[in-house]
Amino acid sequence: MSELELDLLPTVSNDPATATNRCLITEVSITPVAFADPPLLNSVGVHEPFALRAIVVVRTEDGLYGLGETYGDEAHLVRLNRAGALLVGADAFNLNQVSSLVAASLADDAGVGGHGTGGMVTTTSLEDRVLSAFDVACLDIQGKALGVPVSTLLGGAVRDEVAFSGYLFYKWAGHPGHADDSWGAALDPAGIVAQARKIVDEYGFTALKLKGGVFEPEIEAATIEALREAFPDMPLRIDPNGVWTVDTAIKVGQRLEPVLEYLEDPCLSIEDNAAVRAAVKLPIATNMCVVSFNDVPPAIAAGAVDVVLSDHHFWGGLRRSQTLAGIAETFKLGLSMHSNSHLGISFAAMIQLAAATKNIDYACDTHWPWKLASDDVIVPSALEIRGGSVKVPTAPGLGIELDEEALARMHQQYLDCGLTKRDDTGYMQSIHPEFRLATPRW
Amino acid sequence: MSELELDLLPTVSNDPATATNRCLITEVSITPVAFADPPLLNSVGVHEPFALRAIVVVRTEDGLYGLGETYGDEAHLVRLNRAGALLVGADAFNLNQVSSLVAASLADDAGVGGHGTGGMVTTTSLEDRVLSAFDVACLDIQGKALGVPVSTLLGGAVRDEVAFSGYLFYKWAGHPGHADDSWGAALDPAGIVAQARKIVDEYGFTALKLKGGVFEPEIEAATIEALREAFPDMPLRIDPNGVWTVDTAIKVGQRLEPVLEYLEDPCLSIEDNAAVRAAVKLPIATNMCVVSFNDVPPAIAAGAVDVVLSDHHFWGGLRRSQTLAGIAETFKLGLSMHSNSHLGISFAAMIQLAAATKNIDYACDTHWPWKLASDDVIVPSALEIRGGSVKVPTAPGLGIELDEEALARMHQQYLDCGLTKRDDTGYMQSIHPEFRLATPRW
Repeated sequence: MSELELDLLPTVSNDPATATNRCLITEVSITPVAFADPPLLNSVGVHEPFALRAIVVVRTEDGLYGLGETYGDEAHLVRLNRAGALLVGADAFNLNQVSSLVAASLADDAGVGGHGTGGMVTTTSLEDRVLSAFDVACLDIQGKALGVPVSTLLGGAVRDEVAFSGYLFYKWAGHPGHADDSWGAALDPAGIVAQARKIVDEYGFTALKLKGGVFEPEIEAATIEALREAFPDMPLRIDPNGVWTVDTAIKVGQRLEPVLEYLEDPCLSIEDNAAVRAAVKLPIATNMCVVSFNDVPPAIAAGAVDVVLSDHHFWGGLRRSQTLAGIAETFKLGLSMHSNSHLGISFAAMIQLAAATKNIDYACDTHWPWKLASDDVIVPSALEIRGGSVKVPTAPGLGIELDEEALARMHQQYLDCGLTKRDDTGYMQSIHPEFRLATPRW
Repeated sequence: MSELELDLLPTVSNDPATATNRCLITEVSITPVAFADPPLLNSVGVHEPFALRAIVVVRTEDGLYGLGETYGDEAHLVRLNRAGALLVGADAFNLNQVSSLVAASLADDAGVGGHGTGGMVTTTSLEDRVLSAFDVACLDIQGKALGVPVSTLLGGAVRDEVAFSGYLFYKWAGHPGHADDSWGAALDPAGIVAQARKIVDEYGFTALKLKGGVFEPEIEAATIEALREAFPDMPLRIDPNGVWTVDTAIKVGQRLEPVLEYLEDPCLSIEDNAAVRAAVKLPIATNMCVVSFNDVPPAIAAGAVDVVLSDHHFWGGLRRSQTLAGIAETFKLGLSMHSNSHLGISFAAMIQLAAATKNIDYACDTHWPWKLASDDVIVPSALEIRGGSVKVPTAPGLGIELDEEALARMHQQYLDCGLTKRDDTGYMQSIHPEFRLATPRW
């Protein structure tokens, strides 16, 4: 580390006689991996054949390792590597030190790219996005060193299982030029109902969420109504990812008032969602207009939303997600959890966080059913969705183990697939050249 | 515990094979103590000859103990004992469980009395006020069990010493009928300047706070100006405890604009402080109009304050005080720390919290210099103010040890002094029968 960088370190006591538990970081490795992803449709295009993630492994002088998982876009990998290098020598027990070092590593960063969200949410905090996986990995280390699950480090489990919602997608039968996948096509209300039956049968979900913003709002509203008919008692949500105008959102929202549990990101901006919220008798949820701590004051001032879908990947990790939970409690906002395509490390982190967060008010989102069981970097079986919920691991740390062989295999898959950043729009345009981004679209 | 009470417990796994670190609580003792207090004047009267505190000792099946300290008023002691009884059998590692049990213990509580603030701040959250000492004691236990200081459990120390301000009080030379104390009288600007010289000489403080609300605002403003003359570079604050009208606060505030670091609680309500803030070019600080999470939304909506003086004794302990710190960071509020008369356990908790809180922006308040060094329940020397700061203990837990003999002696002092609740007004009226409460007074 340069002298400048050393100056940025918080001044902490190094007296080994008193600071009995420290875990000095000796190595940080960042490994990009790819896993098969079905052609899931959304407002900006379609999921490519492979989803990318970065696997963060932090090792300490005591031989412990901690795991983190985050976006795999190239620009993000560069930042992770730069931050990781700075963390060598830091104490995995000092999350504040870790966060200061991450901030220092980004001092000259222009902040362009690397969001890993296919262009959909780009206004998240750069610092929190890079910090997240290191925060998770350090908590994993702390838990292992101390013999407690991460939920304990976060204040203690308030539940022994975490409920998730079944995440429904309009989709093609398979990627063009490839065989159909096991889910088949879902391009109309009947297709989504069939998909819902399959996902509920297999996982036992007790809430369903439809990714919208794909077809004309009339079709998507009809899809929700078809789901209601097929599942009379199931809480239902729709998320058009902000591509509706205020007028459309009000029209569709009012139509679905008797049906929806909440309406997620009908529009993109705080102002537009506030206008929708004033006109529609439904809770408005968001993971697009409140995506960083900077968004909280204006969103609250505008009365834009009722429910914040937190996401530790862009809210700075688990401790800072708990701060968001405290803000939600203080301002009487509902709280749930957003998901991007992810592997088992992220899943474990989401579960430990939800386990220790009193005010998780809704079943959380997860893409878990959309990946192949064989595609992961952790030893299988630690995390299984049964009856719509996952048992919270109680083993030390995150409660999962790295499978080194699987990590190597998934990294090779990354190299072989040739993708370096998520690009739902470019992929869609390679198949449908006439596809154009539009916000709002309807 | 009754079956009803057991039902209120969060459902956590009890599998000992996986949940490796648990600390089951076997005993909770609440001991009221009294310590000598000088005749410090304030807006509601004068400090009585003894200040009361409750010492909470939580013991676990592993033979560990954790310490907490809180108000000693009779009504508070009743609540602490009721909550403490419910905590036997709980896991000191599960702060969420502890908080649920404390809430359960208060279900039928009317919430009257026990604030321990001499009637000055009575709108704090009952639940957070009772939770606080147990939260601190459990963190002390966790730190000891894990071999880390509490600052580590709170995210890691960002500083190795915590700065405090010298707390100046108008005061009588001694309690009526007793000899003068070592500080002597301070009943005018010259007296406060002399007191400031003594406190700065002895402790090296680099910021000074004057407790106001005692004399006419003209005298108190002149006192601040005299301090400025005597200490040209010292940050200065005044706290009239909300007894000024908006007009008076604006007049005095504008007069002191060139002099003060911040103006603390010029008025009592959110609305009145917002009006003052709009007219005076000084940061407005509070520990009276924002004293619970419920106060945060209206205070922010009104733009009432710039700085929140947190106090873990009424904000629900250290973890919840960190949530407040996160709210302050999110809403760009300054953060410092409020103090009531306290002993070493509270001091250690304040120091551990401040050590791990990045955005403590000001030297914190403490009454520490106003108690006799011999009056405490902890083994001496762990906490000393030098150069205005205290070195953060790095030993496990809070970094302090209970002195059982001293606890017994201080408890006997409590029994002997005959006080059962703090009553600054009653004591003042016993000496000056014409004294009347008035808010605002000027």
